[in-house]
Amino acid sequence: MEAYLDNSATTRTFDEVAKLMVKIMIEDYGNPSAMHLKGVEAEEYIKKSAERISKVLKVDPKEILFTSGGTESNNLAIIGAALANERSGKHIITTSVEHASVRSTMDFLEERGFRITYLPVNSKGVVDVKDLETSICDDTILCSIMYVNNEMGSVMPVKEIGEIIREKKPDIIYHVDAIQAFGKYEIHPRRQKIDMLSVSSHKIHGPKGAGFLYIKDKTKIKPIIYGGGQQRGMRSGTENVPGIAGMGLATEMIYNNLSEKIDRLYELKDYMIDRLSKIEDVRINSGKGRDVAPQIVNASFIGVRSEVLLHALETKNIYVSAGSACNSNKHVSSNTLKQMGLKPEEIESAIRFSFNLQTSKEEVDYAVDTIKEMLPKLRIFVRK
Amino acid sequence: MEAYLDNSATTRTFDEVAKLMVKIMIEDYGNPSAMHLKGVEAEEYIKKSAERISKVLKVDPKEILFTSGGTESNNLAIIGAALANERSGKHIITTSVEHASVRSTMDFLEERGFRITYLPVNSKGVVDVKDLETSICDDTILCSIMYVNNEMGSVMPVKEIGEIIREKKPDIIYHVDAIQAFGKYEIHPRRQKIDMLSVSSHKIHGPKGAGFLYIKDKTKIKPIIYGGGQQRGMRSGTENVPGIAGMGLATEMIYNNLSEKIDRLYELKDYMIDRLSKIEDVRINSGKGRDVAPQIVNASFIGVRSEVLLHALETKNIYVSAGSACNSNKHVSSNTLKQMGLKPEEIESAIRFSFNLQTSKEEVDYAVDTIKEMLPKLRIFVRK
Repeated sequence: MEAYLDNSATTRTFDEVAKLMVKIMIEDYGNPSAMHLKGVEAEEYIKKSAERISKVLKVDPKEILFTSGGTESNNLAIIGAALANERSGKHIITTSVEHASVRSTMDFLEERGFRITYLPVNSKGVVDVKDLETSICDDTILCSIMYVNNEMGSVMPVKEIGEIIREKKPDIIYHVDAIQAFGKYEIHPRRQKIDMLSVSSHKIHGPKGAGFLYIKDKTKIKPIIYGGGQQRGMRSGTENVPGIAGMGLATEMIYNNLSEKIDRLYELKDYMIDRLSKIEDVRINSGKGRDVAPQIVNASFIGVRSEVLLHALETKNIYVSAGSACNSNKHVSSNTLKQMGLKPEEIESAIRFSFNLQTSKEEVDYAVDTIKEMLPKLRIFVRK
Repeated sequence: MEAYLDNSATTRTFDEVAKLMVKIMIEDYGNPSAMHLKGVEAEEYIKKSAERISKVLKVDPKEILFTSGGTESNNLAIIGAALANERSGKHIITTSVEHASVRSTMDFLEERGFRITYLPVNSKGVVDVKDLETSICDDTILCSIMYVNNEMGSVMPVKEIGEIIREKKPDIIYHVDAIQAFGKYEIHPRRQKIDMLSVSSHKIHGPKGAGFLYIKDKTKIKPIIYGGGQQRGMRSGTENVPGIAGMGLATEMIYNNLSEKIDRLYELKDYMIDRLSKIEDVRINSGKGRDVAPQIVNASFIGVRSEVLLHALETKNIYVSAGSACNSNKHVSSNTLKQMGLKPEEIESAIRFSFNLQTSKEEVDYAVDTIKEMLPKLRIFVRK
C-alpha cells in the first residue's frame, strides 16, 4: 500500500489535466501572440482558463494574471505593489509565520529601505486583528497575510483584516497568499476586501510551473518581468499555455461540489487526530474542527526526530513532511512552530501530514498503524 | 496540406517530450524539495536535465539555472547583473535590434539610473565590433548581445565580441540572448567567452513555461525572485519538474546529429529564397548562405500589407509571422527592419518564414506556390 500524505508540498496532476496539456503541446501549440489562427486558438485556452478561475473567485477574468507559480505570484504582488507605491509610504505589514516566498521578499524590500511589521501569532498560529489595527500607520502601503499556514493549517482572519483595512486606511493594498487555501475554501476577494490573491497550480492537481495572481482592477502595481508586453504588460513572456489551461481545468474540477468533499476531509482530519492522540507522547500541534484547514495534521512524536520518522515511513511508501517542504533547505527548522511557542523537542519531532480531496480513510489508517508499530522501536533506537 | 512556418514564434512539442512530462506529472510528481524518496526522484529529473544541457554547452551542470522561459532568463541576466554590480558602474552596452525582453528590461534599468548604449546595425542587421570597442567605458559593467536576431536571422559576431571584452575590460559581464540560436548552432560559452546565456524551451520543441540561464561560475548576479531558496537561492519556487525534464530531453534530441540537420536546413533556406526571388516585386530581407541563421527567411511582398498576406495564407493552412510574433502587441511594426534601413513599404509588407529541423521541401513549395497564386489577386485588391 501507499499513502501520499504530502499534498501541501505538491499534488499528483489530474489525468484529465495532463491529457489536456498533451493536446495543447502536440496539436494546439501556437504562440498566443501570433496573429494567425494557431495563435488565436492558443489565446482561447488562456481566456478559457481565466474564465474558469474567475467564476470560482467571482471576479472579472481580466483580473487574473498568470505567473510561473505561487512564488512568482507572491513576489510580483509584494515587490510590484511596494515599488509602485513607495512615494505614498514605505511601511508594510505581514505576519511572523509567512511562507519563505513572502518572508524573503520582505527581506529584499527591507534592504531597499522599506519598514516591515511582523505580526506575532498566538499558540494556535493565528494573528490578533487588534495587533494589525495598531500597526497601521500613515505610511502603510501594503498588508500581506497568508490565508492558511502551510505548516500548521491555521487559518488567518482574512475577512476581518480586510474590513479593518477598509475602515482604517482604505488605500492600503491588501494581498493574501492563498496558496494553501485555494481549492479548500470558497474565496471571494470582493466580499473579503482582498486586492491581490496568490495561487499555485501544483497544490491543486494542476501542473508545476503555473500559478496566478488575482489583481483587483485599478490596483497600482509594477511588473517584475519585462518584455513583449503579454498580459497587458504586467507579465511578459510567451504564456505557458498548457500550464495555464491545465490549472484552469484543475480549478474547475476541484471546485465542483467542493463543500461535500471538504466535509469529508474534516471528518478524516478529526479521525486521524483522534487516532494519533491515543499514541503515547504524541502532541497534536494543529487542531480538530473547522478552525484549522481541512487538509493538514501537524503532530510531534516526542523522542523521534522528524527526519528519522520521515525516512522510516518512506520505506513503507508513506510520504510525509518535516516542516514545510517548499523550502529547499531541507534541514531548516520550522519557523511557524517556533513562533507558536512550541518547545524545541516538539519542533524537532514535528511531522506534517497533508491530504488531498481524494485521500482515503484506508491511507490514514495505514499511516497511523505503521507509526504505532514503528514508534517504540525508533524511540529505543534514539534513546540509546 | 499544412505548412507551419512560424517556428521562431513557437514549436510543436516533441511527442517524446510530452510523454516524459506526463509520466512525471502522473507518476513521479514529488516536490524536489521534499526529503522523502518522491522528492529525491523529482530532484533526479532536474539533475538529469542539467546534465543533458551542460553536455551540449560543454559547461558544468551546476552552471545551469532553470527559469520559466526566455523572457525570465533575459530579465534575470540583465537586472540581476546590473543590480549586483551597480557599485562598479552603471553603463550597459547592447544592440538596437534586441528582442523586447532585453529592450524593455534596459528601459527599466534606464529609469533606475543606468546608462545604456545601443549599438547600431548595418544593412544586414549586424553590429560592427569596432562600435562595441569604442563604447566600452570605465563604468561598463554589462554587455548584452543577441546571438541570432528573431526577425531577420542575422547572426552577431558573438565570439569576436567576447574576445574584445576580455581584452579591453575583462570584468564586463557578457550576456548572450541565444533564444533563436540554441538548437541551431554549436554554442560553447567558455570558448566564446560568454558569462551568461539565455535559452527558451518552446523554441526547440520543448514545452512552454521553461527556459534556462547559463551562469558561469562566480558571476556576480542577484536573483529577481525570492523565496524558499531553490536552485542555490538564485531562483526560488518549486521547480517546474516536467517542464525542466522536457526541455532537457528536447535539447538532447535536437543536438543529436545537429550538423547534418543544419546542412539540410541551409539548403532549404536557399531553395526558398531562390524561388521567392523569382516572384515580381519581392524583396528578400534576409540573406542566403551561412551568414544568416538556417531557419529564417524574411521577405517583403511589396504592395501587400503583412497582415493581409498572413491572413490569406492561414486560409490555406500556411502559418507565418509578420514581424516578431513574441510581441503581444500584434500590430507593432518591426524594429529590426527599421534599424536596418528598410523603406516603409518594405517594412509594412515583410513576412517572416521560420523552419524547424523537420520542415520539408514540400511545405516550402506549398507555401511558395500559394503565395505566387495569391499575390496578384491581393495586389489588385490592395491597389483598388
